[in-house]
Amino acid sequence: MASAKKKICIIGSGNWGSAIAKIVGNNALAMPDKFDTEVRMWVFEEMVKDRKLTEIINQDHENVKYLPGHKLPTNVLAVPGVKETGEGADIFIFVLPHQFVKGVCNQLKGNVKKDAIAVSLIKGFEVKDGGGILLISSVIRDLLNIPCAALMGANIANEVAKENYCEATIGCKHPEYGAILKDMFQADYFRIVVCDDETTVEVCGALKNIVAVGAGFADGLGYGDNTKAAVIRLGLMEMVKFCEIFYPESQQGTFLESCGVADLVTTCYGGRNRRVAEAYAKTGKSIEELEAEMLNGQKLQGPPTAYEVNYMLKAKDMEQRFPLFTAIHNICKGNLHVSKFMDCLKNHPEHM
Amino acid sequence: MASAKKKICIIGSGNWGSAIAKIVGNNALAMPDKFDTEVRMWVFEEMVKDRKLTEIINQDHENVKYLPGHKLPTNVLAVPGVKETGEGADIFIFVLPHQFVKGVCNQLKGNVKKDAIAVSLIKGFEVKDGGGILLISSVIRDLLNIPCAALMGANIANEVAKENYCEATIGCKHPEYGAILKDMFQADYFRIVVCDDETTVEVCGALKNIVAVGAGFADGLGYGDNTKAAVIRLGLMEMVKFCEIFYPESQQGTFLESCGVADLVTTCYGGRNRRVAEAYAKTGKSIEELEAEMLNGQKLQGPPTAYEVNYMLKAKDMEQRFPLFTAIHNICKGNLHVSKFMDCLKNHPEHM
Repeated sequence: MASAKKKICIIGSGNWGSAIAKIVGNNALAMPDKFDTEVRMWVFEEMVKDRKLTEIINQDHENVKYLPGHKLPTNVLAVPGVKETGEGADIFIFVLPHQFVKGVCNQLKGNVKKDAIAVSLIKGFEVKDGGGILLISSVIRDLLNIPCAALMGANIANEVAKENYCEATIGCKHPEYGAILKDMFQADYFRIVVCDDETTVEVCGALKNIVAVGAGFADGLGYGDNTKAAVIRLGLMEMVKFCEIFYPESQQGTFLESCGVADLVTTCYGGRNRRVAEAYAKTGKSIEELEAEMLNGQKLQGPPTAYEVNYMLKAKDMEQRFPLFTAIHNICKGNLHVSKFMDCLKNHPEHM
Repeated sequence: MASAKKKICIIGSGNWGSAIAKIVGNNALAMPDKFDTEVRMWVFEEMVKDRKLTEIINQDHENVKYLPGHKLPTNVLAVPGVKETGEGADIFIFVLPHQFVKGVCNQLKGNVKKDAIAVSLIKGFEVKDGGGILLISSVIRDLLNIPCAALMGANIANEVAKENYCEATIGCKHPEYGAILKDMFQADYFRIVVCDDETTVEVCGALKNIVAVGAGFADGLGYGDNTKAAVIRLGLMEMVKFCEIFYPESQQGTFLESCGVADLVTTCYGGRNRRVAEAYAKTGKSIEELEAEMLNGQKLQGPPTAYEVNYMLKAKDMEQRFPLFTAIHNICKGNLHVSKFMDCLKNHPEHM
């Protein structure tokens, strides 16, 4: 990052990518001494009513397909090629579905500035060879050979686009990069806390979906506020413990940031994982059936996360230490009846 | 606490007191080596359909007035006199409206065993002479000259009485007393964590009501999940900071217990403080009018807590460090329009 003016590119242009493009584009305009005003955004080309989506965005300044009703700043340039988008960029913002990250990085590889940096806004993870969680930021880091931070929080894209007040957490090991990223992302309605606990910030975004499945079970079983609060809190404590074991540099304070408790709570009250899990407990249909019925066949993130986490726990003979994660996994897999969920929590190590 | 068998008494017999009597009564029966099986419960005498309430409880084993539909263990003895209830007791459980604590303690004074202990289940506080928060446990401690622990958590009484799974936190400085209290309170559906951070456990129970008012404002103003999550989290961070300043022995980990994040979240999603604050933002009526309309004239705890907290902050010239608490207080007092609530959070010290 030798040059004074940082050139920003955004890899992805869905709902969240477009909402972020609005903020980042405006910040680039407002701080011309810090950022190149042109912000390129990679758009997977598609036709919308006989017009190319890139053309619509560049002429009408609106992503009519993924964020209709919100104008993008005119300095956000939609580009159909990944390589062209990343050309000469100092900062890469990754905000696309996690299954495309490897392919996109492989296209960028070899054309990335040595001193560029990246930040991932992607919630989710890759599966390690053999099993277990592999963080998206580490995929990016490994393929592009540049540092990669993470931005996470209780951030529903449409609400951010409406400029409703909210917070996000940036996990970034390098303070100087953290400061640049904060300048780039913060708006008066989008408030940023930077912490150096990169890994925990990102892991929270994956683990919360397991807990949300548990919250949905509690709802579907007809329990009230007390029980749901206990499920959320025990879930949080298992998130803390999981990070202590698998990411020993993890700091407890990070769980009090937006990426931790705030995103967890939002996901456990709203969110599709909670909703489908509630239906599971009520109907007895399988998770797959419910995904087909309720999500148009889209997949939930909670059950596969529970699966990979269980793989990691089993390998360390630690299922007993994580009764909530373990029960949720077993219920999702059909190995345990959902009505037994609470029984699994009666001797939780937190209460011993 | 010299004698091996502890004699338990319960000072209070409302909704929460009766739910707790069920647990404690059963535990006293189940552990006759640790506890005297007779558990006396002070009942403010009143007539229910021509019968005395104490008589109904002692004959039918049900508090038909405050916890109808749930049988109490037969070893719970309703007693109409405070003094008689406390006679020879080793453990005092205080679970009555906070405004009656002083009067009751003054009646007990002089008849309390020297080595007795107390535990307060009362959420709320007294006002210090001149202003500011005085913890209920310290009122009990000072008047009876015995140690006093606190039990707090996300515990709606009716759900506990239904034996729905939940958690609570006991704050107790003395490990040996903590262990006795855990034996006395824990059930397989009522799970206890003991920590030594007595003060924070209790302070959380008061401060959460301020945050719930803020959550209600956000709801009433039409904001979504992101904003509400931010209000709850910033509220939590101000609770942490408040304890750091006014109760310097406070530990951050306590906020991750049931008394902290769990009770806070439940109060910010359910609860009357949230509900009335939402109506305030929507209707523009005063808090007093809404209390009369929505709560049969009962008073909210959030606004007076905000008032006393503001008194403490002002005295230390610290209002600026607590923009959320301060804004909520000013809105409740009519000194700030509720529509300005989010503006007050745009330069929150957490984001600086």
